[in-house]
Amino acid sequence: MSGVSPTKEDHVDVLIVGAGPAGLMLSTWLSRCGIKTRIVDKRGTKIFNGQADGLQCRTLEIFDSFDFANRVWRESNHMIEICLWNPDENGIIRRSSRIPDTIPGISRFQQVVLHQGRIERFFLDAMKEHGGLTVERGVLPVSFSFDETKAGDFDDYPISVELRTLSDQESTPSQRQQHHKSANGQESTVEDGLFRSNLVADDTDDLIRSTQNTTNQKELVKAKFMVGCDGAHSWVRNQVGYKLEGDSTDYIWGVLDIIPITDFPDIRHRCAIHSASEGSVMVIPRENKLVRLYIQLQTTDYNKTGIKADRSWITPSIILQSAQRILHPYKLDYTYCDWWTAYQIGQRVGNNFSLQERVFLAGDAVHTHSPKAGQGMNVSMQDTYNLGWKLAHVIKGYSQGSILKTYESERRQIAQDLIAFDHRFSRLFSGRPAKNIMDEEGVSMEVFQKAFEKGNEFASGIAVNYSASQIVAKEGKISSKPQLATGIDIGKRMPSFKVLNHADARPWHLQELLKSNGRWRIIVFPGRLTEPCNMQRLQTLGKQLEAPDSFVHRYTPPEQSIDSVIEVLTVHQGPRADIELLEIPNAFHPYHSDIGWDYWKVYVDEESYHEGHGQAYANYGIDPSRGASVIIRPDQYVSWVGEVDEYEEMSRFFSGFMIRQAVGKGTVDGADASLATPRL
Amino acid sequence: MSGVSPTKEDHVDVLIVGAGPAGLMLSTWLSRCGIKTRIVDKRGTKIFNGQADGLQCRTLEIFDSFDFANRVWRESNHMIEICLWNPDENGIIRRSSRIPDTIPGISRFQQVVLHQGRIERFFLDAMKEHGGLTVERGVLPVSFSFDETKAGDFDDYPISVELRTLSDQESTPSQRQQHHKSANGQESTVEDGLFRSNLVADDTDDLIRSTQNTTNQKELVKAKFMVGCDGAHSWVRNQVGYKLEGDSTDYIWGVLDIIPITDFPDIRHRCAIHSASEGSVMVIPRENKLVRLYIQLQTTDYNKTGIKADRSWITPSIILQSAQRILHPYKLDYTYCDWWTAYQIGQRVGNNFSLQERVFLAGDAVHTHSPKAGQGMNVSMQDTYNLGWKLAHVIKGYSQGSILKTYESERRQIAQDLIAFDHRFSRLFSGRPAKNIMDEEGVSMEVFQKAFEKGNEFASGIAVNYSASQIVAKEGKISSKPQLATGIDIGKRMPSFKVLNHADARPWHLQELLKSNGRWRIIVFPGRLTEPCNMQRLQTLGKQLEAPDSFVHRYTPPEQSIDSVIEVLTVHQGPRADIELLEIPNAFHPYHSDIGWDYWKVYVDEESYHEGHGQAYANYGIDPSRGASVIIRPDQYVSWVGEVDEYEEMSRFFSGFMIRQAVGKGTVDGADASLATPRL
Repeated sequence: MSGVSPTKEDHVDVLIVGAGPAGLMLSTWLSRCGIKTRIVDKRGTKIFNGQADGLQCRTLEIFDSFDFANRVWRESNHMIEICLWNPDENGIIRRSSRIPDTIPGISRFQQVVLHQGRIERFFLDAMKEHGGLTVERGVLPVSFSFDETKAGDFDDYPISVELRTLSDQESTPSQRQQHHKSANGQESTVEDGLFRSNLVADDTDDLIRSTQNTTNQKELVKAKFMVGCDGAHSWVRNQVGYKLEGDSTDYIWGVLDIIPITDFPDIRHRCAIHSASEGSVMVIPRENKLVRLYIQLQTTDYNKTGIKADRSWITPSIILQSAQRILHPYKLDYTYCDWWTAYQIGQRVGNNFSLQERVFLAGDAVHTHSPKAGQGMNVSMQDTYNLGWKLAHVIKGYSQGSILKTYESERRQIAQDLIAFDHRFSRLFSGRPAKNIMDEEGVSMEVFQKAFEKGNEFASGIAVNYSASQIVAKEGKISSKPQLATGIDIGKRMPSFKVLNHADARPWHLQELLKSNGRWRIIVFPGRLTEPCNMQRLQTLGKQLEAPDSFVHRYTPPEQSIDSVIEVLTVHQGPRADIELLEIPNAFHPYHSDIGWDYWKVYVDEESYHEGHGQAYANYGIDPSRGASVIIRPDQYVSWVGEVDEYEEMSRFFSGFMIRQAVGKGTVDGADASLATPRL
Repeated sequence: MSGVSPTKEDHVDVLIVGAGPAGLMLSTWLSRCGIKTRIVDKRGTKIFNGQADGLQCRTLEIFDSFDFANRVWRESNHMIEICLWNPDENGIIRRSSRIPDTIPGISRFQQVVLHQGRIERFFLDAMKEHGGLTVERGVLPVSFSFDETKAGDFDDYPISVELRTLSDQESTPSQRQQHHKSANGQESTVEDGLFRSNLVADDTDDLIRSTQNTTNQKELVKAKFMVGCDGAHSWVRNQVGYKLEGDSTDYIWGVLDIIPITDFPDIRHRCAIHSASEGSVMVIPRENKLVRLYIQLQTTDYNKTGIKADRSWITPSIILQSAQRILHPYKLDYTYCDWWTAYQIGQRVGNNFSLQERVFLAGDAVHTHSPKAGQGMNVSMQDTYNLGWKLAHVIKGYSQGSILKTYESERRQIAQDLIAFDHRFSRLFSGRPAKNIMDEEGVSMEVFQKAFEKGNEFASGIAVNYSASQIVAKEGKISSKPQLATGIDIGKRMPSFKVLNHADARPWHLQELLKSNGRWRIIVFPGRLTEPCNMQRLQTLGKQLEAPDSFVHRYTPPEQSIDSVIEVLTVHQGPRADIELLEIPNAFHPYHSDIGWDYWKVYVDEESYHEGHGQAYANYGIDPSRGASVIIRPDQYVSWVGEVDEYEEMSRFFSGFMIRQAVGKGTVDGADASLATPRL
């Protein structure tokens, strides 16, 4: 630790450095779980415009689990169709094909665009509503120390960080306000985003130096865990001595957010436009009549200065002129520009994602790449969505610390896949179109379209498939029976289809029942309950779950509601009219003495009056005469599939990493079964 | 006017008395239209629990036009199914049938339940976002005068009202906080709603008397219009000397909002339960685990005091015990009661709805009835939804004052229909079930079910069909051709099906394009535009609409956007891929020099990638080879149907009540056509 004497000292479970989307996702998760958290950011304000803005289907599903996808869905621009434009035999650009932007059926959401400032607002509002955690802005971590001797005890605080509060002036980023004239002669003031582009140096070190001898407020924070969500120039990553590995290309891209005045017919579609020899443009239609254009700047003409590009020549006019040449013979102009920037493509992945599972890195701190595929913000948020519940469960003493190792094993693979995807996609997009089949240096437009279509699945975020581990029972000592639910992939997120609440017949997407509140879930699909053998198996399972030493009781603190750690949901195959809720065993709709039966646990796969038939059994590939049970992680990823009544295997799964509660709280499972306290 | 000397004086376009749902709907409408409005309420706070809470499909459509239906949809309980319970041959209640609560296909929304306090909150938020109008609470109107000599001039202020500001104590309603013990022995504090029940006297006169000699703040407001939304005991109605006509029954009903502890299987469905001899219960499942029970109290046993019932004997325990007897052999209890009240059914309609189209009455001030059918709040809000745009158009000088007469002609009929419905429904619901076919005094359960099903259409609010008038061209000098759109009823609200935006392929429900912003709309359905004759007709219409003296230009103030008074939308029949937007005449997607083409005016009836095919032409009954045009009022009701290019008839329709703008602003149409100023 450095030699200063901070005036205050605080103890927290988790210190988050950086309040961009990755940091805010984590702080939202932790505040939902009731974890003592602080989140600091060196910037004095949040983002107001510009910045990353494509949102994957999977990201919207996650937002919905925190109850604000609806706000995004309403305010965003929905991208429905991609149009590919390529040069024809005369070198004139033509629309060569239309493809859906989101593969139909892949998710209940489609890819949308909304600027990062609004996303951050929704996170901040969500934190305010649940727990009241706020971001400490203009606060800079200036020193770090790690006491390895304390790393083995999760009740101890091995991390010490000194924080300093910056003055308003120090914490205001040097965004430039430019007066510029557009092609039609009108003047306007436009914000640029160059201060966060990778064409300029980071200012963290300068900030630390400049605050060294000031009287700024200082504080020492002791933390159980620290997470660096502090971007490509991550201070946390530098403290733990990790590196990003990879390289930069010499492509430079300009970005314009404008209200376009154009006769180009597909300006409100997402477009990939390859001109014959002037480079490429990606069109991303946005909210509020805006369109974002990613425009290839001809580096060979303009830039000879090597890897760290000189950017002094880049202006909105230069970028617009490039776009005009690429879009010719169509016209393009604007009077309103909302934001602009420029960047150079660099693809890098961190060599390590954590220091002894006490300090973690997430988001741009461990992966950087080009923005055009709309992936960065999504993958960054999904990093901390993966990490959040694991930290919460270890801190609460529900889980052994070993589950934290799965953060790196699961997310580093995703980062590598992302970089490979981006590398291939960027090369195809930046390349000159092939003139003909003999033109081997050029990019074949057929190859490009195939890559685009394949990339679409990756880009949805739905394809993520976590490998086998303690918490993903794909192989090893806990055996799944994937053949019982052929529509459910172990390691992927639980697909969603509509089911009806048994008690009130209201249709819900199954995923709407899987809110991010930290609960593990067992979804029991007992099949058709009018078949006596199915009802019999459900009764058997119900008795085992209700037993005082069942795993549900064992892992739930005695003072908490029985569904607070492992929630049991049931989806039967009806018919609803033939079965009363109270004929279904109590374990599946628990009774509370003050509010009666729980009417929100049992669902049925049946046609609704107004929203069609979800065909859940058919879509999940579950045989209604046999059924299945599915264990789902708190982040909606599937851990295990087995028989309806395979109680022992479920119990073995949870005993692999969970910690017995009750009198023996903190005791590793198996120590003394008789200590468990029976409850409801 | 009374003899006091108010210290302040203000001039407003509209003074609204009463800030319940009807008053708030009106103030929301007027603030969207930029009308100078004040809204006062004698109560010091808004409603927090209890109160009317069923929301019709049509009400949700209207909320959506103000952009907050989504908030209601998320927070509310959705009522999906109605279960009817009747005594069997042994007198034991049995489920006799299940029917959908909302007729499938009737609307894109279904009936939901959410308490009035939240609805009022959404209105207040909507007003805050658009214009910033706020409710003045604890403000009482104490005197009124009307200068008939000024009633002919809409620029003058014939209404004078003295307002007094009440003290906090005066404006707090005398809601009782009761400690009571439920059947299981727990004590709790429950708010009652008796102060707003019709079993107690109104307190307005007392309030006026009590403030007569105090030093409360006084103000004189001069208004062009005043609207009394001040409930069944309306002060405004008393000032203009109008009466409610109708009568009361001797049925007394109790209302309990509880979290039920019960083995009754349908407690989360809406239920109508007739016991053999203990009376009836209506079950309304609500949000937050609550259930509302409307419980018939056996007046013959308890109450002999005549029409204005003695209520001193009514307690939550008495009401619960009645419910328990009716629900026998099922058990019912609670530990949490949120609210309770009691009321006596009375059905009355106002004999007049307006004083010289300057003072209007709306909501409970002109119709009272029983709450069980969930109609009251809806019909009240729809009263002022009907009135709001008419007031705005007259005040802005767009329309002649004659359109204000349609408020009474349209809404009094609805009120009479409502009372007739309620009368019949209440009698059937309160009556003893027939023991057998010979039991003529009893109510036949078949008759009840049929009435219930028929009532369902009425209760959706969708069946409202306004009769012929200046603004509904059903008959008379402007002729519609209803055969061109057999799925659209002139006088009813425009039905909604999904169409795709031509420019970006995003699906929208047509109704989502009809926001409540005060615009008339012409929806042009030109058919398949690949048929040259259809394109030809569209071009002809486009030229006429663009002409400097077209009715669109004539009725739009020259400084305003061309779509601000009459907006033209187009829904063609595709195929989208065969027609570029710029091939469609400019009139249908206007060009603006600063932001280019308008991409949000042209739609297509085509299959979407993710949300199916709206089949708009088929559902509207429009022949794609011929097309049709439809004129829609600012409140989404259909005024006229004709040929695609029937420009002259459209023009004649609007000239019947609209006022020429531009140089001759305020001049009745036809005075001097040459004064119109061409724009765009």
